[in-house]
Amino acid sequence: VKLYESLAADIAGLIEQGVLREGDRIQSVRQASQHHNLSVSTVIRAYLLLESRGLIESRPQSGYFVRAMQARPGAEPAAVPQAARATEAARAPQLDAAKLILATLRSIREGSVPFGSPYPDPELFPSSRLNSYAGSVGRQHPSGLMADLPPGDPELIRQIARRHLDNGLAVDPGEIVITVGATEALNLCLQAVARPGAAVAVESPSYIPVRQSLARFGMRAVEIPTDAVHGIDLDLLERAIVNDGLVAAVVMPNFQNPLGCRMSESHKDALVALMHRHAVPLIENGVYDELYFGDSPPSTLKSRDRDGLVMHCNSFSKNLTASQHIGWMLTGRYRAQVEALKLFNTLGTPVLPQLVIAQYLRQDGYDFHLRRLRRHLSQQARMMVAAVRRFFPPGTRLATPDGGYLLWVGLPAGVKALALFARAQERGISLAPGDIFGSDPSLANYIRLNYSYPWTADTDAALRTLGLLAGELATGTGAGKDHSTLPARD
Amino acid sequence: VKLYESLAADIAGLIEQGVLREGDRIQSVRQASQHHNLSVSTVIRAYLLLESRGLIESRPQSGYFVRAMQARPGAEPAAVPQAARATEAARAPQLDAAKLILATLRSIREGSVPFGSPYPDPELFPSSRLNSYAGSVGRQHPSGLMADLPPGDPELIRQIARRHLDNGLAVDPGEIVITVGATEALNLCLQAVARPGAAVAVESPSYIPVRQSLARFGMRAVEIPTDAVHGIDLDLLERAIVNDGLVAAVVMPNFQNPLGCRMSESHKDALVALMHRHAVPLIENGVYDELYFGDSPPSTLKSRDRDGLVMHCNSFSKNLTASQHIGWMLTGRYRAQVEALKLFNTLGTPVLPQLVIAQYLRQDGYDFHLRRLRRHLSQQARMMVAAVRRFFPPGTRLATPDGGYLLWVGLPAGVKALALFARAQERGISLAPGDIFGSDPSLANYIRLNYSYPWTADTDAALRTLGLLAGELATGTGAGKDHSTLPARD
Repeated sequence: VKLYESLAADIAGLIEQGVLREGDRIQSVRQASQHHNLSVSTVIRAYLLLESRGLIESRPQSGYFVRAMQARPGAEPAAVPQAARATEAARAPQLDAAKLILATLRSIREGSVPFGSPYPDPELFPSSRLNSYAGSVGRQHPSGLMADLPPGDPELIRQIARRHLDNGLAVDPGEIVITVGATEALNLCLQAVARPGAAVAVESPSYIPVRQSLARFGMRAVEIPTDAVHGIDLDLLERAIVNDGLVAAVVMPNFQNPLGCRMSESHKDALVALMHRHAVPLIENGVYDELYFGDSPPSTLKSRDRDGLVMHCNSFSKNLTASQHIGWMLTGRYRAQVEALKLFNTLGTPVLPQLVIAQYLRQDGYDFHLRRLRRHLSQQARMMVAAVRRFFPPGTRLATPDGGYLLWVGLPAGVKALALFARAQERGISLAPGDIFGSDPSLANYIRLNYSYPWTADTDAALRTLGLLAGELATGTGAGKDHSTLPARD
Repeated sequence: VKLYESLAADIAGLIEQGVLREGDRIQSVRQASQHHNLSVSTVIRAYLLLESRGLIESRPQSGYFVRAMQARPGAEPAAVPQAARATEAARAPQLDAAKLILATLRSIREGSVPFGSPYPDPELFPSSRLNSYAGSVGRQHPSGLMADLPPGDPELIRQIARRHLDNGLAVDPGEIVITVGATEALNLCLQAVARPGAAVAVESPSYIPVRQSLARFGMRAVEIPTDAVHGIDLDLLERAIVNDGLVAAVVMPNFQNPLGCRMSESHKDALVALMHRHAVPLIENGVYDELYFGDSPPSTLKSRDRDGLVMHCNSFSKNLTASQHIGWMLTGRYRAQVEALKLFNTLGTPVLPQLVIAQYLRQDGYDFHLRRLRRHLSQQARMMVAAVRRFFPPGTRLATPDGGYLLWVGLPAGVKALALFARAQERGISLAPGDIFGSDPSLANYIRLNYSYPWTADTDAALRTLGLLAGELATGTGAGKDHSTLPARD
């Protein structure tokens, strides 16, 4: 028996005897090395062995822990109570955006009520159908094809062009570049048109990562007020173009994150016309475009583009598969810049997921899946709106979404979202406080709720709890007496 | 019959009758739309149909072309003469790095002699074995696992830790983050430790993308002379730390690209000690570490790291699969920063390729594959060295590589690599001119040759041509009379 096997056997024995129990932290590699007078390599090898047997697990930045019985291979999966568990990572209210996102994601992994998640429930996706293609596309794929390199797999590009066409956007396939999700697409857009120091307009409130990327690239975010009725304020945008020398604007016209609203057709016309008039590039985020509740797909800003000034970013992550991170962009006149940036950011996009998705799109099941997905989300939206109206205190305001899976809720006057966030986390309920979507102080009065997950008794209980907490916070703030409703879309 | 079908049938007819021939450019979408008085959508739909039937193809930034017969589905694959074809993209000597890389890649796609490629021949990889796992891992993968999110799939992380251990590097799996290739890993490292405006040391000559990324992030590259015998100059590096306020250095200690050399053990010790003394982070590029020709793996800088100051970047792209772009890094003390940056750069890494590679590594075929790969590359290295000695003019200098797949060749004094590059491209031979690896003017006298591709009569012929061209350029430059050899590694 080798040294590491012997150490592993000792630890496994302690677990079996119950000396080390589920969730216990075991010695760090360094401690164990000193304690047993073994080399660091030997200890690591022993821990790897125990990990591969499912007895222990490593947690980021924390160390090694004894795994729960039901999580071990061969054990029956046990039901995890949804609302009951506060997670370590989620306990402290963190305003740092990256930590907050990671905390939210980890809380989903571990079973809290994921109202704070920015992602749709992955169970909504046809994973087994997609997975069933993996073997055959793997076999067919010739190794030398280089379909990973920009612009990406030609068949996937063709299928994407076809899909856009079906949705009313005539796009030249030569304008499509495949990316690692819409996140990379948006980053490439920003770098294609803006240098460090440049000013870029973003909506306020808006999606966190774009503002993070602007900071990372040394660019300046100019926040333009955006509301759930009218969308981005065009007068203020034009003023910023003139006064701040904007080099681009990033806009999400359909089912905006976090507002959930869709820009009217006339507002889209006016926005694109404004950008053309000033010859400023417009970066469109279209990741929720397929998640409409009405009868027909919403129009894009890109469909109004006359001279390649609009770049459109999209992905399959919100409507087909979140774990494959396949996105794309329509480059407009910036194709050469985008291809070069893509090369130096990730070189290429993994080819196997591209082939799997292309194959799925060829099979014509996509429309059927999307219809079901839209029906589900639309139903959940109605249930969420009804529950918030029922459980939340007077003075709560909300918009009825007409697409996507996110509900924007205005708390009674004076109630701070961060206070609610902290109290909810203590009870194992995640939510997204408005503060993270921009620097406008009025955002501190809003929360964003994800309604894509299955509706259970826990969901109702968690919303009731949230409502009670909001009510406690509202007491003595002079909050309004009645529910009011944000005006519906025009 | 619909309008687009009718247009497609008309064009297909013209191709069949030979009116439109292989390689002919067909009307642009806009032209066809005006000419036939059809909507742009109808024309795009017709072109998509023709493309899906394999009759036409779109070429980036060029338009639509009639496809070659042999490239059409159902047609017999014809042998493509390797040395005979100069490609459109490769015709003009381009110093712009992105264009050069794309041109080189496209030239490989289209069959020129790929001495200029930065990548190993993909035929060397066990693609069908990897592909055979795609179906089963796809079926097993539970959709909600989120193994795509940082740090990545736990099983792949475990296998990578095990592999490092086998190669003599004891690494805590908690330090590993999966990335989209080593390219993303290097970008995350730079952003984790340097802000826009900061100075970062790079080797001169060195790998292009790091310098490109520094420029993109608004950072300053300080080029430190590096030679094939001693590696990076430590005196000059220390001086730059003091005078330029370096915040990091990027170094490739083993089989450096483009020099092909391996740093001595004592030089590695001294480098890491120097960086620790000044508390400056060291970013190690280890992508060729598995491609050693000796009996045992080369040591890493990371194995000398005492306090988390060394970040190590690596990938499977140079030794297992190039098209999946799965890399990783050892974060040292920068794990939190790296995870946050990863979230905002690509959010996650596609999960299917991670699972396929993890499964492959579990099966124990990796060592066998690598032994064969190393044997092949070592043999090819000897053949390439012999051929260059034989065909190139007196005054040519070269180092005998002891790993990797790249040969660094000094041309006779006065011979400009770019002149050779241009003449070679006219003959369908690609090579990498030294100029692209840094701003030191002496690099203009060197070329880098890739020797991973199968050795054929075309290879010999192409090297003979290169040697003749170099000889013509050397005439009258007073070049040396004899071959000399760059000293071998100590």
